[in-house]
Amino acid sequence: MITVVLIGAGNVAQHLLLAFQQAKDIKLIQILARHPKELTHLLDTQYITSDYTQLKEADLYIIAVSDNAITSVSSQIPFKNKLVVHTSGSIEMNVLDSKNRKGVFYPLQTFSKIKPVDFNQIPIALEAENDNDYAVLETVANAISPHVYHINSEQRKALHVAAVFVCNFVNHLYKIGNDICIENNVSFELLKPLILETANKIISLSPDEAQTGPAKREDTITINSHLKFLKENNQKELYRLLTQSIIHHGKKL
Amino acid sequence: MITVVLIGAGNVAQHLLLAFQQAKDIKLIQILARHPKELTHLLDTQYITSDYTQLKEADLYIIAVSDNAITSVSSQIPFKNKLVVHTSGSIEMNVLDSKNRKGVFYPLQTFSKIKPVDFNQIPIALEAENDNDYAVLETVANAISPHVYHINSEQRKALHVAAVFVCNFVNHLYKIGNDICIENNVSFELLKPLILETANKIISLSPDEAQTGPAKREDTITINSHLKFLKENNQKELYRLLTQSIIHHGKKL
Repeated sequence: MITVVLIGAGNVAQHLLLAFQQAKDIKLIQILARHPKELTHLLDTQYITSDYTQLKEADLYIIAVSDNAITSVSSQIPFKNKLVVHTSGSIEMNVLDSKNRKGVFYPLQTFSKIKPVDFNQIPIALEAENDNDYAVLETVANAISPHVYHINSEQRKALHVAAVFVCNFVNHLYKIGNDICIENNVSFELLKPLILETANKIISLSPDEAQTGPAKREDTITINSHLKFLKENNQKELYRLLTQSIIHHGKKL
Repeated sequence: MITVVLIGAGNVAQHLLLAFQQAKDIKLIQILARHPKELTHLLDTQYITSDYTQLKEADLYIIAVSDNAITSVSSQIPFKNKLVVHTSGSIEMNVLDSKNRKGVFYPLQTFSKIKPVDFNQIPIALEAENDNDYAVLETVANAISPHVYHINSEQRKALHVAAVFVCNFVNHLYKIGNDICIENNVSFELLKPLILETANKIISLSPDEAQTGPAKREDTITINSHLKFLKENNQKELYRLLTQSIIHHGKKL
């Protein structure tokens, strides 16, 4: 039985908390949050503290806080030579305080508090300073997901940047599609099957095979008619740059 | 029983052909293609012609060809006062030759020849010059999909522009994510659950609720570190513009 203490109360911390509650062979013994109230709907107050001096001894401390707080939080853990990891995609392992053994436990998913996620579908990217610590992280990760990968800090950074493109930026394009629908009295519902199919295609086709549309065909008549249709400068600029990028990519192949 | 003649051999024509073959109360009696060979794997040669003078009389002619060929194809139909529709999202109904009755039958989906689609999930946007013709189109559309909408030419254009953002441009962002993975020796497989979840979220959350990431948080440290990490100018430029657009959108709310 591996004992775990979680630090944080945000999206990642809350989803990890729920996953660990259902995992076998992992015992979540405590969670530290600046505002314990944010967690009382998920577990009993006796397991929550806001005081670092009250932290219990555990096999693993998982820091799931915002990137710029990781170093400071890690330095407040009142123990030495414990295994302490963060959950960030973009931050190096080495920002963690050196009095403890370092690692990374990065679940690659987009978390919103209001939507449940199935950890079984989530890849977890792990990094540690030595094999023993890696084995501990692997056991903990395997308890909540079958998709566990050994990823070093440089690879993780690449993954995180790629994730910004395929998730954050993609969602913003959904937002622009939604705006265009609202401005023209069409229901965004009509686009939802297209959105799902576009994502599903990428599971079985490469992005090059899956690419369709006026830019792919270099159909300048349609492209110009769309640019004329768009009224907002920001929408026009994004349309222009993304279209150029598709045409340019096609030429490189 | 409504009789249908299909004109075209591309992605949309082939997927419509397959859908009509399985539809009740709709009889696909002929398909015209410049190169009949492109269709012989789907139906018997006796139903295929490349000669407009051989076109059979039918209740409905569906022109599923590239946008710039629609007018010319419609003028070659050797009949008068028949119902003739095109399947394009971006072209007005009125480009069709005036010797026949006009309409639009626009299935809003991304079609690749190599991947089957379920027409049951596809919205079909219809337009016609009069109620009788609209009723015919509605019967035909309902035979292959439960999602049928009355959409005028202006609304359809908005839908098509929005579809370029949420499908073609989104797929290009998948492509860039894939490039970044390849350049940094990480498997694109790790991103696929994130891609699916990002699409699935939009079914139940608004794009604003679903937005996450460094731009949403205005986390300039991560944003600058990502911009430094990206080596290709095109990737940098897209990252910068999409990040600005997310921050700008957030401020408007």
